Amino acid sequence: MGRRINTVMQTCFFAISGILPQEDAITAIKHAVEKTYGRKGRRIAELNYRAIDKTLASLNKVAVPTDLASINEEVHAIASKEVTEFVRRLTLPLIAGKGDSLPVSLFPVDGTWPTGTAKYEKRNLALQIPVVETDLCTQCGKCVFVCPHSAIRAKVFPADLVDNAPATFKHMAARNKDYPSGSRMSYQVAPEDCTGCTLCVEVCPIRDKTNVSRKALNMAEQAPLRKPEAENWEFFLKLPDYDRRLAKRGTLPGSMLLQPYFEFSGACVGCGETPYIRLATQLFGDRMMVANATGCSSIYGGNLPTTPYTTDAAGRGPAWNNSLFEDNAEFGLGMRLATNQLADAARTQLRGLALEVGDDTVSALLNADQTSEAGIHEQRERVAALLAKLGHLATPEAASLAAIAETLIRRSVWIIGGDGWAYDIGFGGLDHVLSSGQDVNILVLDTEVYSNTGGQNSKATPRGAVAKFAAGGQQNRKKDLARIAMDYENVFVAKVAYGAKDTHTLKAFIDAESYPGVSIIIAYSPCIAHGVDMSHNHSQQDLAVKSGHWPLLRYDPRLREQGKHPMSVDSAAPSIPFRDFARNEARFTVLERQNPEAAEQFMVQAEKDARLRHQEYLELAEMAVPEVVIAEKDREAAEQKEAPNA
Amino acid sequence: MGRRINTVMQTCFFAISGILPQEDAITAIKHAVEKTYGRKGRRIAELNYRAIDKTLASLNKVAVPTDLASINEEVHAIASKEVTEFVRRLTLPLIAGKGDSLPVSLFPVDGTWPTGTAKYEKRNLALQIPVVETDLCTQCGKCVFVCPHSAIRAKVFPADLVDNAPATFKHMAARNKDYPSGSRMSYQVAPEDCTGCTLCVEVCPIRDKTNVSRKALNMAEQAPLRKPEAENWEFFLKLPDYDRRLAKRGTLPGSMLLQPYFEFSGACVGCGETPYIRLATQLFGDRMMVANATGCSSIYGGNLPTTPYTTDAAGRGPAWNNSLFEDNAEFGLGMRLATNQLADAARTQLRGLALEVGDDTVSALLNADQTSEAGIHEQRERVAALLAKLGHLATPEAASLAAIAETLIRRSVWIIGGDGWAYDIGFGGLDHVLSSGQDVNILVLDTEVYSNTGGQNSKATPRGAVAKFAAGGQQNRKKDLARIAMDYENVFVAKVAYGAKDTHTLKAFIDAESYPGVSIIIAYSPCIAHGVDMSHNHSQQDLAVKSGHWPLLRYDPRLREQGKHPMSVDSAAPSIPFRDFARNEARFTVLERQNPEAAEQFMVQAEKDARLRHQEYLELAEMAVPEVVIAEKDREAAEQKEAPNA
Repeated sequence: MGRRINTVMQTCFFAISGILPQEDAITAIKHAVEKTYGRKGRRIAELNYRAIDKTLASLNKVAVPTDLASINEEVHAIASKEVTEFVRRLTLPLIAGKGDSLPVSLFPVDGTWPTGTAKYEKRNLALQIPVVETDLCTQCGKCVFVCPHSAIRAKVFPADLVDNAPATFKHMAARNKDYPSGSRMSYQVAPEDCTGCTLCVEVCPIRDKTNVSRKALNMAEQAPLRKPEAENWEFFLKLPDYDRRLAKRGTLPGSMLLQPYFEFSGACVGCGETPYIRLATQLFGDRMMVANATGCSSIYGGNLPTTPYTTDAAGRGPAWNNSLFEDNAEFGLGMRLATNQLADAARTQLRGLALEVGDDTVSALLNADQTSEAGIHEQRERVAALLAKLGHLATPEAASLAAIAETLIRRSVWIIGGDGWAYDIGFGGLDHVLSSGQDVNILVLDTEVYSNTGGQNSKATPRGAVAKFAAGGQQNRKKDLARIAMDYENVFVAKVAYGAKDTHTLKAFIDAESYPGVSIIIAYSPCIAHGVDMSHNHSQQDLAVKSGHWPLLRYDPRLREQGKHPMSVDSAAPSIPFRDFARNEARFTVLERQNPEAAEQFMVQAEKDARLRHQEYLELAEMAVPEVVIAEKDREAAEQKEAPNA
Repeated sequence: MGRRINTVMQTCFFAISGILPQEDAITAIKHAVEKTYGRKGRRIAELNYRAIDKTLASLNKVAVPTDLASINEEVHAIASKEVTEFVRRLTLPLIAGKGDSLPVSLFPVDGTWPTGTAKYEKRNLALQIPVVETDLCTQCGKCVFVCPHSAIRAKVFPADLVDNAPATFKHMAARNKDYPSGSRMSYQVAPEDCTGCTLCVEVCPIRDKTNVSRKALNMAEQAPLRKPEAENWEFFLKLPDYDRRLAKRGTLPGSMLLQPYFEFSGACVGCGETPYIRLATQLFGDRMMVANATGCSSIYGGNLPTTPYTTDAAGRGPAWNNSLFEDNAEFGLGMRLATNQLADAARTQLRGLALEVGDDTVSALLNADQTSEAGIHEQRERVAALLAKLGHLATPEAASLAAIAETLIRRSVWIIGGDGWAYDIGFGGLDHVLSSGQDVNILVLDTEVYSNTGGQNSKATPRGAVAKFAAGGQQNRKKDLARIAMDYENVFVAKVAYGAKDTHTLKAFIDAESYPGVSIIIAYSPCIAHGVDMSHNHSQQDLAVKSGHWPLLRYDPRLREQGKHPMSVDSAAPSIPFRDFARNEARFTVLERQNPEAAEQFMVQAEKDARLRHQEYLELAEMAVPEVVIAEKDREAAEQKEAPNA
C-alpha cells in the first residue's frame, strides 16, 4: 500500500469505535474497496484486502495522554526562539490545535496574514532525507531546482563564515570561477521540512565511478539525522544570501543560489506544480504580487494558519491573495492596474517635489533602468534615499509620496492557477487579460485534470484519459491553450516541462517576466491524480515531451522587431510512441482493463494527435525552426560540465 | 438631420412643457449639442442648431383626441380578422397601449408567448416603399436576401391561382427552367411593414437600358400604395409556399423562395444583423430552436408584446428564448443536450414498441436520412403516421412516446448573439461550447461594438475605432475569433459579409448547419453605431472585405476526410487601402478631427493589420488556396445571368 493509509485508518476506526458491529463494518469496507479499486485491477484490490486483515491482526491499545504533549513541546521550543508577536499569540496556538481558545479579537480585521510561517510547522514527514556527498557533487543545482518543498538549498559564502559551523555541517569549495575566490558552497537539507519524495536524488546526475549505487545525493534515515541536520539548517539559514546582482540567474547553478520565497508548502509529496512557483519566487519573489486562483495552489499557497510564501532578511517577499475560481485573471489584472495607478501618482508627485528633493534625484528615479537585478538594486537605493529626504521634509506632500514611493520599484505581477481555472472556469477572464496588453505574468499549472476537487476532467484533459465525468476516457483532444494565446496580438507564450528540459523552463520564466506585456507560461505538472509514481515525475515529463504529448515552445513577440518569427518549437518531433508515455499512468491504463478496444483506439488517435500538433506548431513557426535552440545549448553545456564525474 | 428627431423632439418638449424657462432650456440644449456633436464636426453641430431654431419657429398647437382613435381603429381592424384568442385578448390590447387594464391572470404562467405577432404591429414607418418592375426583373432574389425586415418576399406558384388576384397584383412568368412549367412569380412588398431603408433598391442589379435611372425595383411614395399593396400582400400571403423540397436552396433565387420565419422586427432601419437571422430561418426555421444572447438581437427578437419569429401554414416555426448575457452559449448547449436526451428516449421507446407499430416503421424512423429537405419531409410523414398508430394503441407507453416523437425529426439548434456576448462577456461559455463537439450552430452578429447598450468598445472593436471607453481610438487589434475557433479540434468556422458576397454567406449557412458538430458563423454586421449611412450598408461591407478589414473564410473539418485542408480563404488579398473603407464611417473619422496624428498612425497600423491577417490566413490554409472558390463561381454565374438586362 506504500504511503496510503486510508484503508488502514478506516479499518481501525470501525474496529474500535463500535458504530457498527465489527464484522458488518469490515464486510462493508471490503465492499467499498471492490467498488472503488476493482476497476484499477485485481492487484490493487487484493492489496487493500490484505491491509484490512493485517490491520485487524495488528491492533494495539495505545494510552492517550491527557495533554498533547509532543505537539506542545515542539511549539514551545519554537516559541522560545525569536518569533513575532503575531506568530506567538496566533499562529503557534493554531498549529498546536488550540484555535478554539483564541478570542476573535486576535484575528486580523482585514484578513491580512503575515507570510513566512510554514517553517513553524515542522511536519517531519520524511522517513528518509537526502544527504550530499561533497566529494562527488558538481554543484549543478538540479536538486534545488526540482525540490517541490524548497527543502534543499544552495548557498555560496566566504570561507571564514564556516569557522563556527556545527561539526557535521557539509561544505565544499565553490567550483565556478564566477564566484569570489576562495568561496565555499553548501547544499543543505531542511530535515524536518523535507517530505522524502526522493526527486532530488532521482535527478542527481552524478554517480561514484567506483560505486555506481552511490550518487552525489543519497537518501538516508531521517531519525538519526534529524537533530544534527536541524542544527546545520539553522546555521545555514544564518549564512548570508548570495548577492542577487552577482548570481548568474540565466544558468541553473546560478539561479539556484537565489533564495526561494516559497517553502515547505502543504502540497503533496512530489508535487509537480510547486517547483514552478518556487522558481518564480527565486527569480522575482522580492518584488512579486500574486493573484492565485482557487485550486491546489490556493490551498497549499494560503493554508492558514500558515503560508509557504516568505520573506528574505530585508523583509521583502511576495504579496499573495486568492480570489474566486472564476475571476482570478481579472483579480491579478486589478493588482497590475492598481500598481500602475499608484506608480503614476508617485511619478507625478515626485515631479511636483523636484525643488525639494533635487532634479537629479527625480530624473534618476524616473529614468531608472530596472531590467537587471543591479538596476533594481540601484532603484531600491534611490527610493531609500528619497524616503530619507521626504522624512526630513515632513510636509503633507512628502508624506503622501513616501506612502507610495515603493511603487517606483518595478513590480512583478503573477496570476497563478491550475488548468481547471485557466482552461475552463476562468477562461473568460483569462481571455480578457490576454487582450489587455498589461504587464502581467500568467502561470498555468497544468495537471490536465481538476486535481484539488477530486479528479474531474477539464478541457486540459488529454484524449483517452479517464477522469470523473470522463469515465470512458476523455473524448476530445486537449484544448490547445498555447495556440489560442498566440492568436492574441502581443502575448508571450511558453509551454514548459521542467523535468524534461530544466534550462528551457528557466529561460522561459526569465523571458516571460522581462516581457513588457502579457505573458503566459503553461507548465506541465505531474500529479497524483495521474495515477503515477511521483518519484518518476521527471521521467514522465521527459516521456511526455518525447512522445509529443507536451511539445515545448516559446513565442516571444519581441522577436518580430528583429525580423524573426516569434515562435520557436523547442522540442523535437515525437521520437517515441505515445503509449510509452501513457503506460506508466493509471489515468490512461485504467481503460485498457475496462474497454481494451476503446483504449486502443484512443492510443492510436493520441499518437496522431501528437504528430499533428507538432506539425501544426512547426507550420505556425513558418517552417523556420530557429537554428540553435538556446535551451538545448544550455543543457548540453551543463551535461558536459558534469561529465568528468559521471 | 435626415431621419433624426431627438433634437427636434427635445426642443418641442422644453418649449411647451414649462419645466425650465424657454430661453434657459434652449441655451442648455444648444450647449448639449456642442458637447455631444461638437467633436463630430462643425456641420453636424450647425445642423442641430438650425433644427432647434426651425423647431421653435414651426411650433403648432395640435388638439389631442380624448381617445387614441387611430391606433384603436387599426387594432380593431386586425381584431376583426382571424386571430387567436391570445392575440385578441392580450397582444392587441397591449399594442393599443391598454396594458394597464389587463388582469395579471391573463398572462402566460410559464412566460411562453406565441410567435407570429410582429405582423400585427403595422408600423407604417416608410415614407417610400419599393415597387417591382416585372418587365425588368430577372428574379435574382437579391432584394429578398438583403431585406432586414423580411418585407419583400418571393413566391413561385401555378398560373391559375392569380385568377382572383387584386387588380394591381404584380406577377410574371417564372424564368428558371427548374420551376414547374407555366409557373408565375411574384416579388411582393408588405407596405405597412417595410421601413423604407432602400437596401433592396440599392442592391438591385438591373437597370432599364433606355432609362438608366429606372431599376427593376424603385422607391415610390407609400401613401397612395398603402391600401392596394396591403390587399396585394394579403393575397400574396394566401398563395401557397413553394415546396421546400423543390427549392434550389444552394442558389440565391432558390433560397429566397423559402418562407422567412422572422419578419417585421423592431430592428433599426437598414439593420445589418437581421438579414443573417432571416436567412437562417428561411433555410432551417421550420425545425429551429434559438438561444439568444442579450443584446440588440434579443431586444428585437423578443420585443414583447410581439415577436418577429413566426410560423408557416403548417404551424411550424422557431422556438426562441433569451437568457443572460453571460450564459447564452451554455443555454443553447442545454437546448441541444435536452433535445438529444429526448430523442434518445424516443428511440428507446420506439424500439420497445416494435411489436405494436411494426419493425419496418421502427427501422425507417431510426435509420432515416435527414440530410435533405426531402429526407426531413419524409421523416415528418413517418412521425405523423407513427403518431396516428400510437393514438390507436392508447396505452401509457404509446402516450409516452407520442409526447416526444417529434424529436425524431432533426432539430437545428442556433445560438445567436452579438460581439459583446461572443467576444467578451459570454466568451467563457462560448469556449465551453466550442469544445463540446455537439451539433449546434453559433451565429455571431459582429457589429464590432456594444450596439444596444450605447456603443462601448468590445474585443471585436477594430484598432483605431472610437467607442465609449475607447474615446482615443481602440488601441488593440481586433480579437480574431475565427482563428481562435479554428484552434479547437472540430469546429466549422465561417467569416461572412452578406453585402460583399451573398452566395458565400448562403453557402456558409448551409454548410454550417449540415456540419454534425459545432459551427460558428461570424457575420459582419454594419450598424448605426458605426456612424455610417445605412443605405450604403452593402458597399461598406464590400469595402470591408476588399480592404482586408474583413476577410471571408470557411473552415470545414469535413474536408480533412477528403485529404484537403479544412480552411479556404474566400476573399482576395487587400486590393484597396484601409482608409477607403474607414473614411465613410464616423467611428474612424471622429479621431481625425480630434487627434489627426493618432488617427494617421492608426490608419497605417490598420493597413498593416489587414495585410498581416490575410497573410496569416493564407499560411493557416497551408499556402494552398483552393483553386476555385465556390462562392466566387456562384457569383459569376449569377452575374452572367443578369447580364442581358444590365
